[in-house]
Amino acid sequence: VSNLLSFHLNGVEAAAAPAGSRALHYGDGVFRTMLRHRGELLYADAQIDKLLADAKGIGLGVEAGLHHQLHDELSSIAMDFQTIVLKVMLVRGGQGRGYSPVEEIIDRYVYAYTAPNYPGTAWSEGVAVTRATVALAEQPLLAGIKHLNRLEQVLAYRSAPAQVQEVILCDAGGNAICGGRSNLFIVEDSVLQTPDLKSCGVSGLMRDRVMAVARTLGIECRIGTIPWTLVEQAEELFVTNSVIGIWPVRQLLAREAKAPGVITQRLMSTLNHPRLS
Amino acid sequence: VSNLLSFHLNGVEAAAAPAGSRALHYGDGVFRTMLRHRGELLYADAQIDKLLADAKGIGLGVEAGLHHQLHDELSSIAMDFQTIVLKVMLVRGGQGRGYSPVEEIIDRYVYAYTAPNYPGTAWSEGVAVTRATVALAEQPLLAGIKHLNRLEQVLAYRSAPAQVQEVILCDAGGNAICGGRSNLFIVEDSVLQTPDLKSCGVSGLMRDRVMAVARTLGIECRIGTIPWTLVEQAEELFVTNSVIGIWPVRQLLAREAKAPGVITQRLMSTLNHPRLS
Repeated sequence: VSNLLSFHLNGVEAAAAPAGSRALHYGDGVFRTMLRHRGELLYADAQIDKLLADAKGIGLGVEAGLHHQLHDELSSIAMDFQTIVLKVMLVRGGQGRGYSPVEEIIDRYVYAYTAPNYPGTAWSEGVAVTRATVALAEQPLLAGIKHLNRLEQVLAYRSAPAQVQEVILCDAGGNAICGGRSNLFIVEDSVLQTPDLKSCGVSGLMRDRVMAVARTLGIECRIGTIPWTLVEQAEELFVTNSVIGIWPVRQLLAREAKAPGVITQRLMSTLNHPRLS
Repeated sequence: VSNLLSFHLNGVEAAAAPAGSRALHYGDGVFRTMLRHRGELLYADAQIDKLLADAKGIGLGVEAGLHHQLHDELSSIAMDFQTIVLKVMLVRGGQGRGYSPVEEIIDRYVYAYTAPNYPGTAWSEGVAVTRATVALAEQPLLAGIKHLNRLEQVLAYRSAPAQVQEVILCDAGGNAICGGRSNLFIVEDSVLQTPDLKSCGVSGLMRDRVMAVARTLGIECRIGTIPWTLVEQAEELFVTNSVIGIWPVRQLLAREAKAPGVITQRLMSTLNHPRLS
């Protein structure tokens, strides 16, 4: 039961991936997931900018024309579908055995998927989340980068109860970092806060967008250390990513709160992200 | 310039891998690398045991017949070649978008590669190594497991000077853990020591073999914490993996020592591993 519509390798539709792909053997690449909604690829330029910054973060040599090339490809794929999810990977080229990169070519893997169909209550009433039993390892060299080494996330979802829509991961010190496929925000004393990502976690584009929206609304926003106890006590709680926009958190383990809260609601209205329900 | 001889997916020779492979998207699998030398698959049963233990370590449901099936496949692949390197991956099945595992099928990816051709001096005189600029992140849930999230190793090799044959990785606390593609041993006061792998690192089969060989020789062997300073001062130093056996370390940054040392030499003789030169 795959939700894959098409796969393009370096601009050409393909049935499969190279058996020697360094993505497959080492996770040697980066990715971003984007939403095309009613024909419009949301935040396309900013997404590609973040993807290219990640690529540089793992030492891929990004050439000047790549941004434009990716934009063109993403705009011309699966055009029969108005609303889809696009996943773009940049993978270090070369297929020989051994960790040492031998080629500085970048391969482009572009996947088009059917858009998910979530219950509308995820936005209007909020979702249930829990703290993952997996703690994120601290690796400052890779922190913030959306790379292809994602076993921690797989294990986190594997151990999560079926009734939650998202899991929240902490670092080994018990500070909240992000959701399994999302970024985390809390509201405390009417101040918006999101964890810093210096040691682990992924810097999603929607995290940037929400902070920008908060600024336009005059809502103070801080990036810092957020111990789990603060998450438990937060006035409001929500998670973000490029597909869902903002999901208010209704239930956190034993916590039950009215969602969306006042500030979450204001951000959601201003962000005006499509609700795929 | 690929050194790939053949690729088999679930026992069938294949030209490529599934575009939706969870190995490619998440590194959601484990692997082991083995040597077939003059027709004999070295330590085959022990290697498959470790592979299956790793699979269980990331929550793959290993069925009773899998050991036998893998043994059969590895024994019948690329039979035109007497001496090759075989890499076996076990990958969590399913190709949909999203981290949550939906299927508990295991896919078998088997790669046959030409054997590397190292200079004979790597064994007879030793190799040069350096300390990697990358520190390993501590993730007890994955420690010891040979899984497919290997970006740290890629980055470690990327930053290594061209004249070294291996890089040694430490944890964030400065304790030596292992080589980029090998395990590490030191000799101090005639006692063999190798780092514990409770927080990070990979438990290679050859590490087990060398400890077993040491026992038969009456050489005391300890597993414990090895600060980098101890590595620098060690009487003898060597790295191990299933392809090279033991490589004595001749040069460590500015350190220059006669290699192999007495104990290293005794272990090498008793282990009697093929020298692929």
